[in-house]
Amino acid sequence: MICASFSNMAVRSQQLAAALLSLLGGVLCFPLGQETKQTPTCGYESCHATKPNMLNVHLVPHTHDDVGWLKTVDQYYYGDRNDIQHAGVQYILDSVVDQLLKNPDRRFIYVETAFFYRWWKQQSSSMQQTVKQLVNQGRLEFVNGGWCMSDEATTHYSAVIDQMTMGLRFLNETFGPCGRPRVAWHIDPFGHAREHASMFAQMGYDGFFFGRLDYQDRARRMTDREQELLWRASDSLTPPMADLFTGILPNGYNPPEGFCWDQSCDDPPIRDDPDLEDYNVHDVVKRFLIIANSQATVYKTNHIIMTMGSDFQYENANLWYKNLDKLIHYVNGQQANGSKVNVLYSTPSCYLQELHRANLTWALKTDDFFPYADDAHDFWTGYFTSRPALKRYERISNSNLQTCNQLEILAGPVSRKGPFGDGDSQTMKKAMAVAQHHDAVSGTEKQHVANDYARRLANGWQRCQVLVSNSLSALSGSSAKRIYCDNLNISVCPLTESSKKFSVNVYNPLARPVTWPVRLPVNGTSYVVSDAEGKSVDCQVVPVSTSTRDVRRNRGFAVNELLFQVQAPPLGFTTYSVSLLQDGPPPASTQHRTPTAIQNKFLRVTFDPDTGLLSSLSNLETKQTIKLTQNFYWYNASDGNNEQSNQPSGAYIFRPNSSTPFIISKTAKTESIQTPVVQEVRQWFAPWVSQVVRLYGDSRALELEWTVGPLPIDDVLGKEVITRLDTSIKTSEYFYTDSNGREMLQRKKDFRPTWNLFQSEPIAGNYYPINSRAFIKDDVDQLTVVTDRSQGGGSLQNGSLEIMLHRRLLYDDVRGVGEPLNESSSVFPEGLVVRGRLQLSLDRPPSAADAHRPLAQQEVLQPLLTFTDGDLHPNTRLQFSGLQAALPPAVHLLTLTQWDKDSVLLRLEHQFQSQESKVNSQPVTVNLQKMFSTLEVLGVSELNLSANQWKDDMTRFHWTPETDEKPLLKTFPDASVWEVTLRPMEIRTFLLRVSFR
Amino acid sequence: MICASFSNMAVRSQQLAAALLSLLGGVLCFPLGQETKQTPTCGYESCHATKPNMLNVHLVPHTHDDVGWLKTVDQYYYGDRNDIQHAGVQYILDSVVDQLLKNPDRRFIYVETAFFYRWWKQQSSSMQQTVKQLVNQGRLEFVNGGWCMSDEATTHYSAVIDQMTMGLRFLNETFGPCGRPRVAWHIDPFGHAREHASMFAQMGYDGFFFGRLDYQDRARRMTDREQELLWRASDSLTPPMADLFTGILPNGYNPPEGFCWDQSCDDPPIRDDPDLEDYNVHDVVKRFLIIANSQATVYKTNHIIMTMGSDFQYENANLWYKNLDKLIHYVNGQQANGSKVNVLYSTPSCYLQELHRANLTWALKTDDFFPYADDAHDFWTGYFTSRPALKRYERISNSNLQTCNQLEILAGPVSRKGPFGDGDSQTMKKAMAVAQHHDAVSGTEKQHVANDYARRLANGWQRCQVLVSNSLSALSGSSAKRIYCDNLNISVCPLTESSKKFSVNVYNPLARPVTWPVRLPVNGTSYVVSDAEGKSVDCQVVPVSTSTRDVRRNRGFAVNELLFQVQAPPLGFTTYSVSLLQDGPPPASTQHRTPTAIQNKFLRVTFDPDTGLLSSLSNLETKQTIKLTQNFYWYNASDGNNEQSNQPSGAYIFRPNSSTPFIISKTAKTESIQTPVVQEVRQWFAPWVSQVVRLYGDSRALELEWTVGPLPIDDVLGKEVITRLDTSIKTSEYFYTDSNGREMLQRKKDFRPTWNLFQSEPIAGNYYPINSRAFIKDDVDQLTVVTDRSQGGGSLQNGSLEIMLHRRLLYDDVRGVGEPLNESSSVFPEGLVVRGRLQLSLDRPPSAADAHRPLAQQEVLQPLLTFTDGDLHPNTRLQFSGLQAALPPAVHLLTLTQWDKDSVLLRLEHQFQSQESKVNSQPVTVNLQKMFSTLEVLGVSELNLSANQWKDDMTRFHWTPETDEKPLLKTFPDASVWEVTLRPMEIRTFLLRVSFR
Repeated sequence: MICASFSNMAVRSQQLAAALLSLLGGVLCFPLGQETKQTPTCGYESCHATKPNMLNVHLVPHTHDDVGWLKTVDQYYYGDRNDIQHAGVQYILDSVVDQLLKNPDRRFIYVETAFFYRWWKQQSSSMQQTVKQLVNQGRLEFVNGGWCMSDEATTHYSAVIDQMTMGLRFLNETFGPCGRPRVAWHIDPFGHAREHASMFAQMGYDGFFFGRLDYQDRARRMTDREQELLWRASDSLTPPMADLFTGILPNGYNPPEGFCWDQSCDDPPIRDDPDLEDYNVHDVVKRFLIIANSQATVYKTNHIIMTMGSDFQYENANLWYKNLDKLIHYVNGQQANGSKVNVLYSTPSCYLQELHRANLTWALKTDDFFPYADDAHDFWTGYFTSRPALKRYERISNSNLQTCNQLEILAGPVSRKGPFGDGDSQTMKKAMAVAQHHDAVSGTEKQHVANDYARRLANGWQRCQVLVSNSLSALSGSSAKRIYCDNLNISVCPLTESSKKFSVNVYNPLARPVTWPVRLPVNGTSYVVSDAEGKSVDCQVVPVSTSTRDVRRNRGFAVNELLFQVQAPPLGFTTYSVSLLQDGPPPASTQHRTPTAIQNKFLRVTFDPDTGLLSSLSNLETKQTIKLTQNFYWYNASDGNNEQSNQPSGAYIFRPNSSTPFIISKTAKTESIQTPVVQEVRQWFAPWVSQVVRLYGDSRALELEWTVGPLPIDDVLGKEVITRLDTSIKTSEYFYTDSNGREMLQRKKDFRPTWNLFQSEPIAGNYYPINSRAFIKDDVDQLTVVTDRSQGGGSLQNGSLEIMLHRRLLYDDVRGVGEPLNESSSVFPEGLVVRGRLQLSLDRPPSAADAHRPLAQQEVLQPLLTFTDGDLHPNTRLQFSGLQAALPPAVHLLTLTQWDKDSVLLRLEHQFQSQESKVNSQPVTVNLQKMFSTLEVLGVSELNLSANQWKDDMTRFHWTPETDEKPLLKTFPDASVWEVTLRPMEIRTFLLRVSFR
Repeated sequence: MICASFSNMAVRSQQLAAALLSLLGGVLCFPLGQETKQTPTCGYESCHATKPNMLNVHLVPHTHDDVGWLKTVDQYYYGDRNDIQHAGVQYILDSVVDQLLKNPDRRFIYVETAFFYRWWKQQSSSMQQTVKQLVNQGRLEFVNGGWCMSDEATTHYSAVIDQMTMGLRFLNETFGPCGRPRVAWHIDPFGHAREHASMFAQMGYDGFFFGRLDYQDRARRMTDREQELLWRASDSLTPPMADLFTGILPNGYNPPEGFCWDQSCDDPPIRDDPDLEDYNVHDVVKRFLIIANSQATVYKTNHIIMTMGSDFQYENANLWYKNLDKLIHYVNGQQANGSKVNVLYSTPSCYLQELHRANLTWALKTDDFFPYADDAHDFWTGYFTSRPALKRYERISNSNLQTCNQLEILAGPVSRKGPFGDGDSQTMKKAMAVAQHHDAVSGTEKQHVANDYARRLANGWQRCQVLVSNSLSALSGSSAKRIYCDNLNISVCPLTESSKKFSVNVYNPLARPVTWPVRLPVNGTSYVVSDAEGKSVDCQVVPVSTSTRDVRRNRGFAVNELLFQVQAPPLGFTTYSVSLLQDGPPPASTQHRTPTAIQNKFLRVTFDPDTGLLSSLSNLETKQTIKLTQNFYWYNASDGNNEQSNQPSGAYIFRPNSSTPFIISKTAKTESIQTPVVQEVRQWFAPWVSQVVRLYGDSRALELEWTVGPLPIDDVLGKEVITRLDTSIKTSEYFYTDSNGREMLQRKKDFRPTWNLFQSEPIAGNYYPINSRAFIKDDVDQLTVVTDRSQGGGSLQNGSLEIMLHRRLLYDDVRGVGEPLNESSSVFPEGLVVRGRLQLSLDRPPSAADAHRPLAQQEVLQPLLTFTDGDLHPNTRLQFSGLQAALPPAVHLLTLTQWDKDSVLLRLEHQFQSQESKVNSQPVTVNLQKMFSTLEVLGVSELNLSANQWKDDMTRFHWTPETDEKPLLKTFPDASVWEVTLRPMEIRTFLLRVSFR
């Protein structure tokens, strides 16, 4: 049984093993040994035999079930709204199970646990037993197995690990080892991130298959038989830790032409009754042999794979299987006549096993698969930015979820059932997990589906708010009602706007103390703010800018904002009290002249008084200065009416119809505020583009808070708005972007590391995903931009970095979504307004990471503010830290979440790459036992990254690259069970047995 | 077991019972008792309980599987050409069986045995056992059960009985009594024939359901709760012999709106997981209760039926059943809250049983359901004529099949395996059976499907030709090669065109001797023809008319035709020899002046010399004369561009855009031939309309051989060509048409017997199907027109009768076929040319049937001519009759066909209605034992009309009409087992045990 395999725990307590109960719907860990007499023969052992002297064709029946796209995830599950798209996952699983039972040779793979989970909990126990048997016999095999098949361009590694963990945990606890996927399977995402490959390797997958890559890349790889390769997915991790065998599927993820037998297809069935008309067995066999032999010429071994399925197929699996049974029968029947083609039901892992057995060497790849183009003018680089508001909402939701997870542990069970009612983190976890789907945070879903994702996140956050309130109540000893102000970004918070006295609890989910600027909408003109020790802190009231007033429409009436800097302890909170001052000083006044410069002790920022634009940035500590101008532009989105191609820009695709963007305004109307707490230059470029250049009193980063929208479309021109930073840095056509928020990748204009690029889209073909940051540098200067969400960007001129902020398009881009990306809502009927911020850090290249790594982490995991009206009870605990001490700067506490009653999942991460920082790119050791203040850690055991296998049990296939000596797997033993060492970019996952102190 | 139920045979021979082996694919008679221990509880016994104090809603899961329509029958079976229409019957049956097994409450009905047979023979024996069990438990129930669901307007009763017999036999022999349908089910045919109801009654059905009827009729019946009624379907048969309880389904055959859960539908599924979005159980239950209660207001009892299915539905039955299970669960769950609605899985027979138990009286209906209109301008009266060539080919194929069947028996086994190879009648039987489908002979299928039906008939005839050759070889003692000339209608026969000496075998499938004119294409100018006794017979060579030359295009070169009259013995053949005469007289010459009259000893026909048109017709025996003019016209088919309605004329619908047809020509160009053998006036009206008015030397009927086409469409006007006979008969707006070739029905202009008609289409709304004849009459004159195929016609003016001959349309009529009815072919690329004939008989009304009954039968069952080149061997038997003597004139030998090795199916028919003839409308007795010349009849047992139940076992439900005293079932015992008496319009079906003499 699966529990038995969890045997290497530092404290081998039977109680702990037995307690591995799922929190997901109460599913019990499945004791295989007791329920079936047969030894399971799943995984590689259950593969059909192949024929060594023949071409073996692995037919892989599969369905690709988007966790939301044209319909919501629940509409897909039930088969609702079939008028939009015929798809009902409940029926797919019903049907596949039935059909698998009809012929033991048949195989099926299932991928998306979000759907499988929905189905499973509606099944009778006898059906569940049946399915377990199919899984134990390898007839039904899970591949990938995450809650969804995540997007690779726009997701943050933190949320991806979470969703994978949730899906794989469900499989593990439901099916035991036979439910553990051996293969990662990202057949649909639109380009592939190196960090995803790294994560998959660390999750224990033996190999990875995908369907989409650049058409030029594919062509070259077909010629060179390099469609199967070894991906070395980290610069920092010791091989083969992040090595992942990667296979490119032959037809995307579709069957070969003419062999689609789903109910959604029109290919001719095999008509083998000679008494009826149109007998076609000979024709089908002949066509199949031609295709198989042709496919074999672009792969290395005598094994090829055919994906027999596609989007939401197998709703009536009989159609597929009945014809596949016949295909196998008749094609193999030709072996008696000398045919050398052997067809078999198979799975990706069975195919992988044969590739592994071939014992060949494989081309090594160290870059990634972005950007993805499926034709010369069809670059899928628009979705890097599509739906910027959803992308931000997803990111802040992740921050809120991590806070929720942490507080669930820090206060214990009372957080789930406490004075504010029943709360949970599961709802939010599930909402976040579906939001990682490659048509969710990617922005490539229909509008109503995007609304559904957002609603789920909002629901999840509602449940978490109860939990957080319970937890904070327990930790602070105050059951006063806590108010959440989720609209602070548009300066809306009814409490602070109306209250004369309130307190602000600031919870910091990072494992180090943070300083954070708080901005609260108020209607008073003067306030007193004091910290947890009762000391007064500097604060400032400033008038709300008109662009904020525009954005919030009728949702708030605050005329001012109260600003002050808070300092929050690691994994804990502190409390500030705010009182209206009746006769205090007036708010800061705004000046309508552009200041020459704003500056604090770290940075100096100059402006061109004629244009109102930025003109330079200086780091006063390092004494470096760069020229820096910044402005806003829009590309005119192609409407598809073009002689080169009829491809329009759309949700997926970015295609400007000219390489020169239109400038929105050469000059900005400005006003400024200069106070000790904050200095702002507010810039207006158009009624739909404004910005605040903001420097807080003790910040090392310059904040550019942009507000864009509603994009005007009266001129019937789709618009893709960018901001561009033009600097004096000598970039030599290079720039750098992160991969899923972790390691940085070098990008070069009009260049791909693995083939000779023919560049056909000079702008879109040079766009890359930016998840958390991008930088440009030369030998002396590095300008890093930290973003608050995933965006697309590029560096098209020397010294320049552009980031796409918002898009509004009038045409569908013909990739299935069937809607133009033209966002509006009841709140914004004339089009969506989006606000965000970029944080700029200017540093010397060798130490830049020391700044941008923590800066980016604190952008990802932001403090959570909660408010209490009036006075707090005097016994209230105003300050708390869940840690005994802050973790070292290189260590990021990635995950702290309840696993089951007595255990906790902990992930610690070394957040620096090797070579990145002299100070921080070093191994660092932490003591798990001495980490927490409220938890006693009784036992610890290390897991793989996805927490579905003991680390010690990970035995992945070994693959040999072509151009590399055999890598030696170095092991770095920890000093003790408790003292664990993290090396650059390493994430370590622990299951802790705990008790509350 | 089914064999056991065949227990009332006159000769109760165990051998006979045991020998009831099917000829259909070798399926064995199924001995139920041996294979299952359970007593079958199928049929009425297997119905779910209902609740007496509630409204019981009978949900009937069903699929309607057209035996060809948009796709061919085999394309439908396999699910081929899903690009045309998604439909695959193999998968439907696979899926339904699987789903029935999942829940014993579920029910399904299956209808079309053509498909079920295809599926059954591909199943494993274990699957066959499974299905048998489902049938024995009443979970899978067959309704209707014919090979197809026949068309009612354009089929001939003979072929309908055959196809029903074939389908029901397969069910009987496969499943025994549980496979016998209790209910007739014609949910889709476009109007309903009284003769069909009569046949269904005689086939033992307890009730009948259909979906389509005139919208005004339905409205009236809903108001009066007369949607269920008792149909008294014969004027001649003693009630309740032809009484059929008839139910009109509530939604055609579809589910109520919003409750279609097939994969082809988009209605919302029941979403009952409260954890997911869009929970909708309350909404679904509420909507269902509203619909059910509303439906109950237009029916009489506390039982209503809902047809949960439609065209080719249940390919993925899980979708339907999963949601139906939930519907039943949740709706019945409301009973606890006081709901009075009870939903249950049911079948038509279970619903019928409840109606029967209600013990009510029902409205009596004695007319039929033609024409069918689904809206004011949407009369489905075009298909009465659509595809006239296919309709004729189907009719002549029936004649050939009956000949094939008879000769199979008359010569015995050697006919199936003889000197000319292996022949069979099964192929032709199946081809004829599918051709009866309501989108086959109806002409409402796509062109490629029409081609498929024709090809099947041609293939069937090929197989029959071998059988016929073998049989004639055996009976005549000559194995000389027999040549078939299937193109004599266009004067093409390579043998007769080139041979100097040949013989003609004339086989007569009627049970009485016939005289028949033979017309053979020849190139000689003079021939000698002698009969079987060597006596010379009158013959005549005439030049082929130019219109025939036009029709046959490049297919023949004969310049002349040789005409002579043959006399053939009952159920037998005679032989004529033909020799070219070198110096004989020249062919008859044609005159270019219109003769005043042509006449023989029976008839005189006058012409108007100015116009070339007919002017009068006289019966010289009865000394009656009528004025008779005849001409050709075309209606301009509506293109749908019309202010009243946008309905165009199409394959189904006849809608002239003006009530006045265009005359093709007021005068005819003529030529004439007058010889003792034949007199012809050949008329040309246009390049695309010509006619031969023909009177044979000893014929009592006047032949009008029309040739129409290609209909010109250069003017972009769709055309519907009629011929109209205008007479001096005072018709008083009445005329008469046959029902499926049997009983005559009175029609009245702008009138329906059962409701106050609002006539909105003055032409199309007065059209009726003519299968074999129509007549107009007054007190002294009756003019009967016998047709050679099914056609539509009407009587729109006093004394007038019009018949539609051909249609060519440019628009689809939006009933699904998706093609305009615009026939052309490679032979006729410019449009189809059609030739046919009308036979006119002028009589005194009281004795008209004495003429038209035999005339029509000999049009339906024509002599078959076969040819042998050169001299026959002197020992050749030139004449043969399978009967010991001709049957009496009132008796028609309807069926004589092999049943199994030692038994033969015989149907004898009284071909006169009661009151129709002083002479013939009398009971008549025949002796079965003394009937055949080559067969010894060892035993006899009577069956129901469809031969799937012993006559003595027929116990149909008794239904009481509202307006009738309780009918007394009179029985007329036969004089002996062998001497059977037939009463007017009675058909009696016997299984004979035979041996060959």
